[in-house]
Amino acid sequence: MSSILVVGSAAFDDLETPFGKAGKILGGSANYFSLSASYFSPVKCVSVVGEDYPKDHLQTLEKKGVDTQGIKIESGKTFHWAGKYEYDMNQAHTLATALNVFESFNPQVPDAYRNSDFVFLGNIVPALQSSVLDQIRHPKFIAIDTMNFWIEGQRDALVRAVSRCHALIINEGEVRQLTQTYNIVEAAKIVRSWGPQILVVKRGEYGAVLFDHGQVFGVPGLPLAEVKDPTGAGDTFAGGFMGYLASHGSDSISPSVLRRATVYGSVMASFTVQDFGFTQLLGLTREKIQERYHQFVELTAFHQA
Amino acid sequence: MSSILVVGSAAFDDLETPFGKAGKILGGSANYFSLSASYFSPVKCVSVVGEDYPKDHLQTLEKKGVDTQGIKIESGKTFHWAGKYEYDMNQAHTLATALNVFESFNPQVPDAYRNSDFVFLGNIVPALQSSVLDQIRHPKFIAIDTMNFWIEGQRDALVRAVSRCHALIINEGEVRQLTQTYNIVEAAKIVRSWGPQILVVKRGEYGAVLFDHGQVFGVPGLPLAEVKDPTGAGDTFAGGFMGYLASHGSDSISPSVLRRATVYGSVMASFTVQDFGFTQLLGLTREKIQERYHQFVELTAFHQA
Repeated sequence: MSSILVVGSAAFDDLETPFGKAGKILGGSANYFSLSASYFSPVKCVSVVGEDYPKDHLQTLEKKGVDTQGIKIESGKTFHWAGKYEYDMNQAHTLATALNVFESFNPQVPDAYRNSDFVFLGNIVPALQSSVLDQIRHPKFIAIDTMNFWIEGQRDALVRAVSRCHALIINEGEVRQLTQTYNIVEAAKIVRSWGPQILVVKRGEYGAVLFDHGQVFGVPGLPLAEVKDPTGAGDTFAGGFMGYLASHGSDSISPSVLRRATVYGSVMASFTVQDFGFTQLLGLTREKIQERYHQFVELTAFHQA
Repeated sequence: MSSILVVGSAAFDDLETPFGKAGKILGGSANYFSLSASYFSPVKCVSVVGEDYPKDHLQTLEKKGVDTQGIKIESGKTFHWAGKYEYDMNQAHTLATALNVFESFNPQVPDAYRNSDFVFLGNIVPALQSSVLDQIRHPKFIAIDTMNFWIEGQRDALVRAVSRCHALIINEGEVRQLTQTYNIVEAAKIVRSWGPQILVVKRGEYGAVLFDHGQVFGVPGLPLAEVKDPTGAGDTFAGGFMGYLASHGSDSISPSVLRRATVYGSVMASFTVQDFGFTQLLGLTREKIQERYHQFVELTAFHQA
């Protein structure tokens, strides 16, 4: 089993959906990713928080097998995001962003993290994603995410960072924007021409599509009777995906392991959306995860051998 | 093998998508449905056309195993629809509608059709859907489709028609509108309370979801390198779905047959969208259909038994 280095944000979120509100709850890509991945593999987390960040949450992460020595505590306030969703929760509407300590974030990878085989570059400034990679000695499998803001403002730096990765894990709308093409088969070709042979397109409630060396795999979303808050679902997906891969080690990334990683990503995301924040991710067990995985097996089975 | 009675429209369509235009080509729900279903089972078609309708198309249908004696030729012009799609082809924009002979359509089911076991009530006035059912002696499996226009204007008559059916096959946006709920798990419960134990939700490029006696099955859409025109994809889906069921007979509608029917519906729809109109449906073979079915098997396989 390999450990995973993740770099991303830690935040306070104010959230509003048609099903309720939550004020100043913990969030951020590094939190969702780490908690999700922790059920599969050890995680080493690189992020920055302010003095207002709750210390007991760092202890919670440690108990889950997440190494937090890479989470720097700076004087000032933690990154704060306020967002709102309509019934179509595939699209977040940002109400307010206060970068705070995140504004001057310059990720330093602790020496103990530099031999990580698996690396996940969460959605931060593209140049910082590249700078994290520069600090890793011999990464075996690197995945990257991003968002519309960087695609619009820093596309060249972003494509440079993407070109150094094995996998791009990204929302459907954003891969269209990044590749400047609507068709996702075409988008996968363009991404492949940049470097990554693996593209995972996240489609919210519609599931995910994996392009892997020219093959394609699709998994539908699990229809849920209750969906409260989609925040963090994408990072949770990435955590399940990378966690499952890392649990197999970098020499065992076969097409079928990548397919099951895509399902485990969907499994983990399906928990996150059932409540506000990452509440659901705190109380999982391997049994609950396997039970949900088998719901996906049931959901998708049709072929008589 | 049972035959299927279908009632629906025959039309001339003017179509515009980001990938081209087509003027005055043949369309209508009865055509898409019949051609699609014809690869699985004999079809008996009830519709109405004007004197401008090409006779050789009726011969084409007959050669495909579609009985056309229920297609009435009235004096006047054939129904005409003009529509446009943006890149997001899940939503059609109607530019013009001329009902013509369709305005006074009062479907008469020929006596030779009245013993049909399988019935598909395509998208027409809800009261006419009910009137068709009144003319069938002992239908074993009835499915129905509809559209926003009838949901908005004739909801009570529509729910009455739906309540007499075994299956509702409908677009995602429309089932939300019809059941007045956003969540499709909840929507399936409401539909079940009306009568139909089977709900098939069509999600365009995102595939389809089948709710069947409380079980749920999902199939993703097949990512295609080229999609030209989504017109008729929903009716093509219904044709593949019903055709596959009818090929097994009404005593063999098991959960696994319903799942494979959902996949065959998706298979047939994936052909239709690759060109304008129903061009693709004219030249298929059982071999091409099986090949595409196996692409869906490949697309969705992940579980190690």
